[in-house]
Amino acid sequence: MKRTTETRSDRKHQDILQAASAIFVAKGYEGTNMEEIAAKAGVSKQTVYKHFADKERLFAEIVLATTDQVEDVVTLVLKAFAESHDVTDTLQQLGRRFLSAVMQPELLKVRRLVIANADRMPQLGRSWYENGFERVLKALAASFARLTDQGLMRVDEPYLAASHFVGILLWIPVNEAMFTGNDRPKSASELDRIADAAVHAFLMAYAAKP
Amino acid sequence: MKRTTETRSDRKHQDILQAASAIFVAKGYEGTNMEEIAAKAGVSKQTVYKHFADKERLFAEIVLATTDQVEDVVTLVLKAFAESHDVTDTLQQLGRRFLSAVMQPELLKVRRLVIANADRMPQLGRSWYENGFERVLKALAASFARLTDQGLMRVDEPYLAASHFVGILLWIPVNEAMFTGNDRPKSASELDRIADAAVHAFLMAYAAKP
Repeated sequence: MKRTTETRSDRKHQDILQAASAIFVAKGYEGTNMEEIAAKAGVSKQTVYKHFADKERLFAEIVLATTDQVEDVVTLVLKAFAESHDVTDTLQQLGRRFLSAVMQPELLKVRRLVIANADRMPQLGRSWYENGFERVLKALAASFARLTDQGLMRVDEPYLAASHFVGILLWIPVNEAMFTGNDRPKSASELDRIADAAVHAFLMAYAAKP
Repeated sequence: MKRTTETRSDRKHQDILQAASAIFVAKGYEGTNMEEIAAKAGVSKQTVYKHFADKERLFAEIVLATTDQVEDVVTLVLKAFAESHDVTDTLQQLGRRFLSAVMQPELLKVRRLVIANADRMPQLGRSWYENGFERVLKALAASFARLTDQGLMRVDEPYLAASHFVGILLWIPVNEAMFTGNDRPKSASELDRIADAAVHAFLMAYAAKP
């Protein structure tokens, strides 16, 4: 019995998160209220408050859940480099998949929400930055350090090189999406071209010289 | 007489812009109303409407005015490269001044406002992107192309190289500020170190080889 109860509660928890996420993205933090979330999730307002003490904590859970998507990318990074010795090929695959993950419309919308509310909730923004942003940089840095040890790259400061890699890769497409509200999303092949050019430039700077 | 009238009107126009800018930054687009702007500017609500048809147009004027700050950076770029043949030294000065300009707290706040409202006003975001962002890239690209012709750099695709330069330079500090609400602003010397490292990496990729 207990197990069934937990499952039902978990399901409601997920329903609330999903409903809230859609409304936050559509109406912004200020424009969202708990009544509307309850109605969309098909639960009572009391149930919403049983799961989430207030709107801010509900928002935080949605935002921080997206860092799990980033975790997946990190795992991908580490695995790709551990299995391959062709740096150019591996970095190119990584660049394409990473860019494609970051450019998912729902993730871009959450990103915009975090930025919009950073003055109001700096602690949440910092958590997202540290759990998402910096975790990827650290994983990349560890891989670049190992590849340098193996003579396959030439990187003196791995964390700095990792930040240059993501800067070259993401600056243009992410900013265009941030500023223009995704009104003209890029095709997969456009994104691949951006990724390939970024990897090419990055390796001009950091590849092992023959 | 006519001249005095115009001047007084111009001054009111500026007072309204300044008051509105402060309130938009503090309260966001939704949280701002024309009454409050009028009160802060010390003019009547009618006067505000005489100068700006509605809140959206007032907001747009404030946002687009910041692209003038970017114009200054562009001028600086073109001048710096025209006067020097020491690419490393010039790029380093440029990197430091450009990063410092972009990291001005008021500009970061307007940037955050534009992103926050990009879904609501994609056309404004696109104007800011094209007038600010892309103008700098074009100016940089023109300089890189000329330096390549002179044998001082080795750039096949100038616009792409320009986008890599700003990505390496700005991705980390701008994003940290976007997400964390400027709660721990970086010192001038930290920013200089970031700029110098970015220029160093960029030139590893794009300097003319001896």
